[in-house]
Amino acid sequence: MRTVRSIKTMQNISRELAARGKRIGLVPTMGFLHEGHLSLIRRARKYSDVVIVTIFVNPAQFGPHEDLKKYPRDEKGDLKKIKAAGGDIVFIPKATDIYPEDFETFVDVEKLTKVLEGASRPTHFRGVTTIVAKLFNITRPDVVVFGMKDYQQAEVLRRMTKDLGYPIRFIISPTVREKDGLAMSSRNRYFTPEQRPEALCLYFSLRTAREMVRSGVTDCKKIEKEMRAVIKAASPTAEIDYIAFTDFHTLKPVRIIKAQCVCSLAVKVHGVRLIDNLGLNVPEKSARRAD
Amino acid sequence: MRTVRSIKTMQNISRELAARGKRIGLVPTMGFLHEGHLSLIRRARKYSDVVIVTIFVNPAQFGPHEDLKKYPRDEKGDLKKIKAAGGDIVFIPKATDIYPEDFETFVDVEKLTKVLEGASRPTHFRGVTTIVAKLFNITRPDVVVFGMKDYQQAEVLRRMTKDLGYPIRFIISPTVREKDGLAMSSRNRYFTPEQRPEALCLYFSLRTAREMVRSGVTDCKKIEKEMRAVIKAASPTAEIDYIAFTDFHTLKPVRIIKAQCVCSLAVKVHGVRLIDNLGLNVPEKSARRAD
Repeated sequence: MRTVRSIKTMQNISRELAARGKRIGLVPTMGFLHEGHLSLIRRARKYSDVVIVTIFVNPAQFGPHEDLKKYPRDEKGDLKKIKAAGGDIVFIPKATDIYPEDFETFVDVEKLTKVLEGASRPTHFRGVTTIVAKLFNITRPDVVVFGMKDYQQAEVLRRMTKDLGYPIRFIISPTVREKDGLAMSSRNRYFTPEQRPEALCLYFSLRTAREMVRSGVTDCKKIEKEMRAVIKAASPTAEIDYIAFTDFHTLKPVRIIKAQCVCSLAVKVHGVRLIDNLGLNVPEKSARRAD
Repeated sequence: MRTVRSIKTMQNISRELAARGKRIGLVPTMGFLHEGHLSLIRRARKYSDVVIVTIFVNPAQFGPHEDLKKYPRDEKGDLKKIKAAGGDIVFIPKATDIYPEDFETFVDVEKLTKVLEGASRPTHFRGVTTIVAKLFNITRPDVVVFGMKDYQQAEVLRRMTKDLGYPIRFIISPTVREKDGLAMSSRNRYFTPEQRPEALCLYFSLRTAREMVRSGVTDCKKIEKEMRAVIKAASPTAEIDYIAFTDFHTLKPVRIIKAQCVCSLAVKVHGVRLIDNLGLNVPEKSARRAD
């Protein structure tokens, strides 16, 4: 496994790989990898000859009061995990190389970014789309894999990939959860052992939503009310940012559960903002769960 | 020479070319080619194994009251000229394929686009950077050639190319002029034979500026005053949009002529908006003209 820190070197490696007809898979990450990330690397492995994993804590996607500085890092541990999961190249650029002082170009997906996470974090997705476009240009992947955990992010990036004509196969991989159901996230480590059980309030509420849909409830207002009660019970001090029911691809709100819709939510638990989501299809004769 | 109209086909061709180690040169155009465009194709030829010329009248870079609909087109003539100039592939996508109904991703260079042409045409450069990024992604060039005639456009695109990490060599090629000095432009055909001589007012004023600088004048205000008089004399009804003296790369205004600065102007002559520019270096011992 090779570690690359220079943009120029990474560009040259990608060019050489393309010239040798190699299929490049890309998994962009912000490091501090957990099983969720590793599942993306294994997925990329299946579709490509060479898997590039990038580690870059992207300042442009953090808001002024967000946790950029305290965002957890563990490069040494990450490298070991990437190697074990089948990564071939790890690209770890410097922030000052990615965003030199005179940097002023941004990629923006205009509509999909205005709702859900984008409504709460106004410049977040512009940071995400800009860095991912730049990583696409530097590494020139044939396949890219993102996680369903950040479902809106995945849809925004899929839109960008299509709109800007990138010849890249776009794969969204299922959320990986702890045994108790908590969606894996680098932010989970912020909890003390006493606080940790309360983080489950998101998953519990999503499970409730799914059960209600399975039992025939399709009115999103009813489901949301029940979800709020579940969250309150599991974490009395939790602050709900949003609970949303949206079409999978357009992210437009739905009032009545239908095929291809997703329930997503953001909740602050003991000061840590968590997100999670679950596919909620109306049960049809042959329906299967969709997350 | 091959003509390609499908985005998918173009992507596949570029991938195959890369896999064969071929160096791709790209010349993006809006068609209706003149000698200026052909000089770009010849220049690209020198640096690449395969030259792709794109013809796309890009709706996103026209303002609501600009000449999109009457913009001249001559595909058959263009193809002949491109072949003669050494183009290998002509990519002519459909507007509905480039901008499908749900298109919503834009690339924006934030500062360089606020002055000169950008001040007069607020959404113009966003259209330019978006289409060029898309053409970069579809054709994956190693070298790209733009003309100095659209000098701000070239600098904006150079900034985008660098900021977004495209592994592309960026070449700006000198303006090609008619025998009498008029910068070649598809819009020149809008003039009647009677109006045509007045279009020279831009070049005359730039030549005056250069002569003044050569004779030791460095105060931009003085030069501009003289230029306005020259324009007025050559075309009494001409409307000057702007005359600007700027640093070549930063596009920041200069008050006193220095090395690496450019005088650019936009003038409406009989309803046709023309632009032109000329490098104006302070003459040093070994100075040579710089356009």
